[in-house]
Amino acid sequence: MSNLREAPIGVFDSGIGGLTVVREIMRQIPQERIVYFGDTARVPYGSKSGNTIIRYSCQDARFLKTRGVKAIVVACNTASAYALDALQKEMDVPVIGVVKPGARVAARESTGGNIGVICTAATAGSHIYRKYIQSLRPEAKVFEKACPLFVPLVEEGWRKDPVTRIVAERYLQEMKDRRVDTLILGCTHYPLLRSTVGEIMGDHVTLVNPAYETAIELKELLKRENLENQGDSKIDENPYEFFVSDEAERFRAFADSILPVDITTARRIPIEEY
Amino acid sequence: MSNLREAPIGVFDSGIGGLTVVREIMRQIPQERIVYFGDTARVPYGSKSGNTIIRYSCQDARFLKTRGVKAIVVACNTASAYALDALQKEMDVPVIGVVKPGARVAARESTGGNIGVICTAATAGSHIYRKYIQSLRPEAKVFEKACPLFVPLVEEGWRKDPVTRIVAERYLQEMKDRRVDTLILGCTHYPLLRSTVGEIMGDHVTLVNPAYETAIELKELLKRENLENQGDSKIDENPYEFFVSDEAERFRAFADSILPVDITTARRIPIEEY
Repeated sequence: MSNLREAPIGVFDSGIGGLTVVREIMRQIPQERIVYFGDTARVPYGSKSGNTIIRYSCQDARFLKTRGVKAIVVACNTASAYALDALQKEMDVPVIGVVKPGARVAARESTGGNIGVICTAATAGSHIYRKYIQSLRPEAKVFEKACPLFVPLVEEGWRKDPVTRIVAERYLQEMKDRRVDTLILGCTHYPLLRSTVGEIMGDHVTLVNPAYETAIELKELLKRENLENQGDSKIDENPYEFFVSDEAERFRAFADSILPVDITTARRIPIEEY
Repeated sequence: MSNLREAPIGVFDSGIGGLTVVREIMRQIPQERIVYFGDTARVPYGSKSGNTIIRYSCQDARFLKTRGVKAIVVACNTASAYALDALQKEMDVPVIGVVKPGARVAARESTGGNIGVICTAATAGSHIYRKYIQSLRPEAKVFEKACPLFVPLVEEGWRKDPVTRIVAERYLQEMKDRRVDTLILGCTHYPLLRSTVGEIMGDHVTLVNPAYETAIELKELLKRENLENQGDSKIDENPYEFFVSDEAERFRAFADSILPVDITTARRIPIEEY
């Protein structure tokens, strides 16, 4: 058991967006080791079909399992929307996604039950946020909106740019018209656009970042299952390991701009073989 | 030999952009049958590394080979930039890409030898257009510029939109500053933005669409190799076949907006197995 407590947490995402979840885990439970896998060769998942998302997500989790992880975090809304059930069935370690933690806090904290979700086309098509929020708060109204240009705009480095502002105004108009009181940033890239989205929606709208809520849920899960690392990961030489499916340079540059630690190594692995 | 003459032409692309090449082939050599494969599960290639692009492209071509094609057209600038040599080595049928036909006409027709290329990040990074143009016209100046937002803007359906116009103006400013006289639309999605690009660059700049030049080169190749279909493909019940690696609905909708024929069927195949 002590061995398992010292095992790392596995985190995967379709690419680099999941690093916003890693950032929250590092902040909230700094004593834990992390193994991250980003499927940078097959990114994005948000425009793919459910079956393909499930197939790819299971390969991602199987790879993490080979690294001896004690729990798996699906740090991608699209993969959480489609693959969480399949992963929980296949894996013999706890698996949590980002959708339920985000949905739960929105259902609890929405003042008027008018909740918006901005996300990928695949996540919107799954209606998973609506289903889960309404299972907790049946009278809630949930509006899901795909914003396909947000990810490429973030990846182009145009986080604070007039173009991004215009695109965001157009995508968010429907949310303003519907007078949502709470807006879920339902894609792991979107917290990087938080200030633009916040300015457009206004102070009276609560923005929910599922990455933050997921780190809290992970912390509680580890406690409940007696899986908390009792030591200090920082004495470990390499507490954070990063793997990708395409070459690592671009990943490293982006990771360095998001994470509070240096990504000294990121290794490519052949994900199709898992 | 008569059998081979009646065999279809294989065309592949990372996704849907290659349909602009199919459209030109249909126009210029309507008697030929076509088998198209779009790697919609793994799209885009333009942000991936060279090695991954080669691996995926070889799988795409191997699949086409199982359909009995007599020649293969790499209808993707990124795949042409990285994988053409590997494909020509591996395949026992002629393989042509879109880069050389586009580069050749630009080198020949540029009035002042000042040539711009707009393309994906991977194509720009390969400098293949510059190398090939300068091999034909050593004094030419070639400026390559990645425009990563063009593909998502086209796929969002914002072909003629103020946002696309602003983004295009920003991307193209460098080309205007350098006073290019010829601009290659070096990604198969970009002909769909032709009118916006043309308006910004002005009438004095020649726009080169490699899809058009590739269809001409294909026609000449078939003639030279005695591979022309002597019959009429239109009497065939199903002269055009479409395959994809992800589910087919979205592909079908986009294809219907580009091609002059109805895409009645598009089938999903497991491309990782080729």
